[in-house]
Amino acid sequence: MKKLINNPEVVVEEMLEGMVRAFPQYVRKLEGYNVIVRADAPVKGKVALVSGGGSGHEPSHAGYVGKGMLDAGVAGAVFTSPTPDQIFEAIKAVDGGAGVLLIIKNYTGDVMNFEMAGDMARDEGIEVASVIVNDDVAVENSTYTVGRRGIAGTVFVHKIAGAKAQAGGTLEEVKAVAEKVIKNVRSMGMALTPCIVPAAGKPTFTIGDDEMEIGMGIHGEPGTMRTNIMKADEIVDHLMSKILADLPFESGAEVAVMVNGLGGTPLMELFILNRRVSQILDEKGIKVYRTYVGEFMTSLEMAGASITLLKLDDELKSLLDAPADTPAFKQL
Amino acid sequence: MKKLINNPEVVVEEMLEGMVRAFPQYVRKLEGYNVIVRADAPVKGKVALVSGGGSGHEPSHAGYVGKGMLDAGVAGAVFTSPTPDQIFEAIKAVDGGAGVLLIIKNYTGDVMNFEMAGDMARDEGIEVASVIVNDDVAVENSTYTVGRRGIAGTVFVHKIAGAKAQAGGTLEEVKAVAEKVIKNVRSMGMALTPCIVPAAGKPTFTIGDDEMEIGMGIHGEPGTMRTNIMKADEIVDHLMSKILADLPFESGAEVAVMVNGLGGTPLMELFILNRRVSQILDEKGIKVYRTYVGEFMTSLEMAGASITLLKLDDELKSLLDAPADTPAFKQL
Repeated sequence: MKKLINNPEVVVEEMLEGMVRAFPQYVRKLEGYNVIVRADAPVKGKVALVSGGGSGHEPSHAGYVGKGMLDAGVAGAVFTSPTPDQIFEAIKAVDGGAGVLLIIKNYTGDVMNFEMAGDMARDEGIEVASVIVNDDVAVENSTYTVGRRGIAGTVFVHKIAGAKAQAGGTLEEVKAVAEKVIKNVRSMGMALTPCIVPAAGKPTFTIGDDEMEIGMGIHGEPGTMRTNIMKADEIVDHLMSKILADLPFESGAEVAVMVNGLGGTPLMELFILNRRVSQILDEKGIKVYRTYVGEFMTSLEMAGASITLLKLDDELKSLLDAPADTPAFKQL
Repeated sequence: MKKLINNPEVVVEEMLEGMVRAFPQYVRKLEGYNVIVRADAPVKGKVALVSGGGSGHEPSHAGYVGKGMLDAGVAGAVFTSPTPDQIFEAIKAVDGGAGVLLIIKNYTGDVMNFEMAGDMARDEGIEVASVIVNDDVAVENSTYTVGRRGIAGTVFVHKIAGAKAQAGGTLEEVKAVAEKVIKNVRSMGMALTPCIVPAAGKPTFTIGDDEMEIGMGIHGEPGTMRTNIMKADEIVDHLMSKILADLPFESGAEVAVMVNGLGGTPLMELFILNRRVSQILDEKGIKVYRTYVGEFMTSLEMAGASITLLKLDDELKSLLDAPADTPAFKQL
């Protein structure tokens, strides 16, 4: 296991310490909990956004804590849902009196624990709403999921709902725009290699030197097809055909594109993927409004990528364009 | 070779097309040349900054083209210096009448070709100056280098000289502040794995499953020590002892920190490294002004990292704080 770590048992704690030491202007850690909140939390009168999940998907979710995006990122153990009491502490720490929106990726454990924490907070008189992101078109049910998985499209929910909250939206309005993003966002990924969860010390799955897996989840959950490695363009053609057909995205639509690396894929390759994504959208008469290329929702050192498309309207465009200032996502 | 590419012979062309398709608001490509320039180049009356080098180090250098940083990024073949005529075209395209500064990483081919391009431009009446970045304290001479290699510290030169140029500095002033950064920046890296140059199809070097190399260059050039994998803290202790002693950085100094991933290293591990970097600086009485953690100067999919420290004064702090808006480096 080739990893730059000290002790597999404390990777999350040491990572969070390293993050807070890097970005004290943006974030602080809740004493005694693996929860990262805005340095200035709670922001009085603003709807607060709480997201999170298992660690190993960095910069998700704590990297998006800051002005214009999240108020708290809750970090579970690697690939493991955070506990209800962790999430409850996050909610209490960021509630500024205008309510809290929980942005949950659709994994059974995450949904259960976030909902339970929401109930605990409601019992204390905090107004809590939640949305569940399920953008992955690859599979309907999966290892850890009833229904579709939530993957990189979640970052668009953070950005757009975060902008709405920053602009003074009510909890109802922030939730409504988050739901609109979820309704209009679709993703699908693939992997060339597995990753190694530090505490396990062995790969999440095995795959041949000449093989790849299409539709792979961000925890190494099985995808839809194991095949010989294809050319980048062929891979994109396959992923895009599934994504485009699903919403469907049609000629005349305007979209935001995210080409997301899973951790071990060089930026060079992500740009080569985006070339074909953009060509296909041109051919289909779909207009690209903004493109994001980089690592947004990773799977430790997994080599692979996902493609996300979000269909935009004027409201979503304006919220996507709003400034954001977080460790991992900045917009001027 | 597990890569998301189409054809090893055209990876640079396809990457640049993917980048321009992603970021048309920031950049465009010079027709017929692997040169990325600001979308609004030339900026009249502003000193223009040109950098570049072999490809495979993304987001360096084209990812830093935009307001407040570079005017052009020249992309050679993978790990291969760009040609003088390419660089010459870049200079001509971005010269806004106030002169052009070439920011060159210290590799023999880069220095030769950038200097030759500078001469060609001077022959056409363009005012050209150049600086050479040599921040890597690992080795004095190396495979492709007389003197020290230039690595991730180069990004601080882009940021700070870019801010000076954006603020209206003269060529002489922009060069002077670039030289000041170079004088005060030190880096050192290490690698757990090699990378594969697409056209070669095989790893740049071999290394055991339980081994790492300290002082490794960003093209797989040999470092200073091949050893068993150490804990993250031990690795940082070693790199920091070399870096700190070199300038030297002393108690009371104020620094910017960059923890740079080489392409295949998860962000989780980079934060674990930064935890120890920050602890050491605390112990030494050195104040951290800003920290950058991510992928800034990579080596394709190599697993590994480098640490960079830049000693700051008031001028450097103010230029580091200035806004920047580029595909890969944003500051509000």
